[in-house]
Amino acid sequence: MSGKYDSQKQRDEMEYREFCLSLPDWVEGALSKNGRTFEHVEERMRLVIELAQLNIEHETGGPFGAGIFEQESGKLLAVGVNTVTGSNCSIAHAEISAIGIAQRITGKYDLGGQGMPAYELVTSCEPCVMCLGGVLWSGVQRLVCGARGEDAYSIGFDEGPKPADWVKSLEDRGIEVLRDVLREQAKSVLIKYRDSGGPIYNARQAKKA
Amino acid sequence: MSGKYDSQKQRDEMEYREFCLSLPDWVEGALSKNGRTFEHVEERMRLVIELAQLNIEHETGGPFGAGIFEQESGKLLAVGVNTVTGSNCSIAHAEISAIGIAQRITGKYDLGGQGMPAYELVTSCEPCVMCLGGVLWSGVQRLVCGARGEDAYSIGFDEGPKPADWVKSLEDRGIEVLRDVLREQAKSVLIKYRDSGGPIYNARQAKKA
Repeated sequence: MSGKYDSQKQRDEMEYREFCLSLPDWVEGALSKNGRTFEHVEERMRLVIELAQLNIEHETGGPFGAGIFEQESGKLLAVGVNTVTGSNCSIAHAEISAIGIAQRITGKYDLGGQGMPAYELVTSCEPCVMCLGGVLWSGVQRLVCGARGEDAYSIGFDEGPKPADWVKSLEDRGIEVLRDVLREQAKSVLIKYRDSGGPIYNARQAKKA
Repeated sequence: MSGKYDSQKQRDEMEYREFCLSLPDWVEGALSKNGRTFEHVEERMRLVIELAQLNIEHETGGPFGAGIFEQESGKLLAVGVNTVTGSNCSIAHAEISAIGIAQRITGKYDLGGQGMPAYELVTSCEPCVMCLGGVLWSGVQRLVCGARGEDAYSIGFDEGPKPADWVKSLEDRGIEVLRDVLREQAKSVLIKYRDSGGPIYNARQAKKA
């Protein structure tokens, strides 16, 4: 943080007024290697699964990756990985980071606004209840999912109280949903995380019925 | 941002790797005036309603305020206001900002972890679906709400697909929920926002059944 604030007083004040989510250093290298355009939806999914996998290897967070692409051209706008444990922030899910960075780059809180290309959010695993809302307010026009919510649940992650008809709830608001894209590859990253003893960091677990 | 990054290259790279949510300048003044300890729950609610009101007057975002307090002593840990339009970020709801800042200050992604005092999140309006999830993962042990979700809906804001039993879904995970604290005062801020022509910024509106 050095150099950002002029004085100790200003630093103390900003502590009460700001938080930042940063992706790990290795992300830039992964993106350089892969280029910036991903024509087919499977290529887009392959990238975000790779990000989830690298996030495990670097021990920088949970086994989840996401990216926002121009739907037609496949041009990558922004990525995110889960950094809950690395950044000490429970908000730092992959989808939330990707959305926040995409909106920072575009300068728009509505990625579906006039004059924008249609964007889609590609995620290695179906969103939890927080990210379901995050997707809804972001302005993306399609959600593409790899692993199912139940795959995350099976390794111990809680999705929260998502309505049973969450797909319909997005579609009713004009957001298309595509599921099970490379599901098995995406699921295998979750299983690898569990087998490596990665922390299942949900603050509280749901009571079983 | 000047001074934060050493070079243009580093700045360009960080654009793809970071986003920050900052509260408006006036927040510090509002907090100085009010002190840092709020014994009764109504005093805590009065503060977050005042933040929502000030956010309208300063035109820095939507009519929502939130704060995180030590439940027993009433000591304030962090606040948030909605800065969706001001910061061009759809994630920037009051509850999300308060949680992110609280976790930055404590250095913990679980505010309910061992050795921490019990924290509660006080919000001027019941959470949307994204913030419902945000509350769930934050580690706060009580959620205190002013206006009802239907009050926000009645001025045009969409809450998203919250399950009908969202209160129970929090209680099942050990989070107590207290509703309707100063509801009329909280609701009057929403109505003032609508009457002043404040933007209803939801990217997409739910289709009516």
